[in-house]
Amino acid sequence: MIDRVALLRLIRTEGVGPQTYRRLRARFDTPEEALAAIPALARAGGRAKAPFVPNAGDVRREIDRFDTLGATLLFLGEPDYPKLLALLPDAPPMIAVLGDVAILHKPIVAVVGARNASVNGCRVAADIAASGRPIASGLARGIDAAAHVAALRTGTTIAAIPGGLDVVYPPEHKALQAEIAERGVLIAEAPPGTAPMARHFPKRNRIIAGLALGVVVIEAALRSGSLITARYALDYGRELFAVPGSPLDARARGTNDLIRQGAHLTESAGDVLMNLPDRPGALFADARIAPAPPGFAEPVALLESGASELDRARRDIPRLLSASPVPVDELALHCQFSPSALVAVLMELELAGRIETLPGNKIGLLLAP
Amino acid sequence: MIDRVALLRLIRTEGVGPQTYRRLRARFDTPEEALAAIPALARAGGRAKAPFVPNAGDVRREIDRFDTLGATLLFLGEPDYPKLLALLPDAPPMIAVLGDVAILHKPIVAVVGARNASVNGCRVAADIAASGRPIASGLARGIDAAAHVAALRTGTTIAAIPGGLDVVYPPEHKALQAEIAERGVLIAEAPPGTAPMARHFPKRNRIIAGLALGVVVIEAALRSGSLITARYALDYGRELFAVPGSPLDARARGTNDLIRQGAHLTESAGDVLMNLPDRPGALFADARIAPAPPGFAEPVALLESGASELDRARRDIPRLLSASPVPVDELALHCQFSPSALVAVLMELELAGRIETLPGNKIGLLLAP
Repeated sequence: MIDRVALLRLIRTEGVGPQTYRRLRARFDTPEEALAAIPALARAGGRAKAPFVPNAGDVRREIDRFDTLGATLLFLGEPDYPKLLALLPDAPPMIAVLGDVAILHKPIVAVVGARNASVNGCRVAADIAASGRPIASGLARGIDAAAHVAALRTGTTIAAIPGGLDVVYPPEHKALQAEIAERGVLIAEAPPGTAPMARHFPKRNRIIAGLALGVVVIEAALRSGSLITARYALDYGRELFAVPGSPLDARARGTNDLIRQGAHLTESAGDVLMNLPDRPGALFADARIAPAPPGFAEPVALLESGASELDRARRDIPRLLSASPVPVDELALHCQFSPSALVAVLMELELAGRIETLPGNKIGLLLAP
Repeated sequence: MIDRVALLRLIRTEGVGPQTYRRLRARFDTPEEALAAIPALARAGGRAKAPFVPNAGDVRREIDRFDTLGATLLFLGEPDYPKLLALLPDAPPMIAVLGDVAILHKPIVAVVGARNASVNGCRVAADIAASGRPIASGLARGIDAAAHVAALRTGTTIAAIPGGLDVVYPPEHKALQAEIAERGVLIAEAPPGTAPMARHFPKRNRIIAGLALGVVVIEAALRSGSLITARYALDYGRELFAVPGSPLDARARGTNDLIRQGAHLTESAGDVLMNLPDRPGALFADARIAPAPPGFAEPVALLESGASELDRARRDIPRLLSASPVPVDELALHCQFSPSALVAVLMELELAGRIETLPGNKIGLLLAP
């Protein structure tokens, strides 16, 4: 069995995002080897100072805090890790869970929507959440809360939260969060004690979409967080459902727009169940959106790259990037390097803090701080 | 020039519906010849008593009443008859018009919806009707009235009414009907003095759909009259637009359903104008919904049918029909008679009052009274 302390040290290493984590696990046999290689990789990526790597004591203290909370830790690649979530190219390397882990292996429906929801919107959310399937949502005000409450009444529910398992947000959901931890599942990617910040919310949203076979959006203004979850659903090959509304209600703009773009027009739980597949569409669909494999294998062995190609890649790839993100596929077509060289250099650049990987597998150059 | 008195006598003859009228005009060179043939045709269709044919005096009195009202009569096949309306297989043989006939030759948008409309629904109707295009509707309460009023404010409007031009229905629309007759166009298919009956409403609806390049449905319950207009729009190859609404509002069930079936999800006049073609889709689309030609030609000359085939067709076709309507196409495939024999026998049966032609070119057997 792989040492969880080493895994968590790697996960908490500065510059190691979910995609870099996957690349490091593919490249190195053990987390210890990856940890040992990190300073050199970051140097190769152009970073002068070595990234911060927590020591064993640091992460043991984190694990102790999880134990005190009664949390189960699910590491990507382990059998208990949710299978649909593992399909994400940016699957969380580890999630901490309170509640019954078995629920995560049932066919899950996500229900998300506006915080400033209308009474009608909340009623629709409750109707749909009473479908009998476990309902995943984000424990936010409005639609999320209505969906969780209704799901608890007729079945069970899963809340993915942006902060630590022991942090309640928003404060009025304290009792609901406790009830979900007891009768459903509460999921956090962040360490205990983490206060939710703006950047945590889209990461939380990807977990909601990633757990589910389909995502139902109820009341969403244009450019709202729920549309980010919808975008993830499409990126991950999940079914997308949207509830229509009057053109005069700004909260229906986003959902009407999703329907116009092809989301299932949804009026009831029946509409959702009728169109819910057994498996994510990405498993069948065209290669462009095919998910990363649940393991850590990369399509081409990294060691195939000759040293001289790697050198050219290290020189050229940063020049091809800009602050405006480009899809990795496009970069690959443009630069003509082998996939292994490309992946190796992207990993180095990410560890060096010079690039970031964004949803939709896009790469953006980070401007020097 | 064809004698309008003879045309109107033919139009007002018992058993002559729009489709039979087209068939008779195709088969006979002049309306007089058709009138002369009617008793024999009805007899061949199995009717003992000759159908009622109004005499010249009867229809001259009707024309006098139209003159007193200041109406213009537009006969199918004449240059002033609206071109899009002429494409209907069941185009009205004659429409009586008050107002500026030229408006009927502009690109028209139809806006229809619930009589028990919500305030919001009426606001959306008004927004969309203010698109600048002439707006056709049915002068009913609710959405229709809101659309007419808004269209008069920014442009012009066309009302197709179920009764006679001089009959006001509903009574509270007296002033609006008068204003439309003056500043827009008021259209009736029925003779002056006709009180609107249930059977007139779907006929009126086909005129609304038939005049327009596209039909916008705003608030429609399931199985409502607006959905009949929507059905005509599809049958006639016109664009179909529907405004979404909350699943909790029964008035949105019909429109949400139309969107699910492929109608353009519509939130504004811009959504309509962006998707409005220059010509009806039926002019381009597959042959199944290709419209009848604006003239009276049938695809195959009727006289090609041998007498013996006609006899067999007269015997067999009534047996193939039942009170449950079947599409003419299906009947044709099933019975193997030539199109000319089929058309001839259907004409005879309709004149004999034994069948009726229904929307979608379906034929149903009328049970003996």
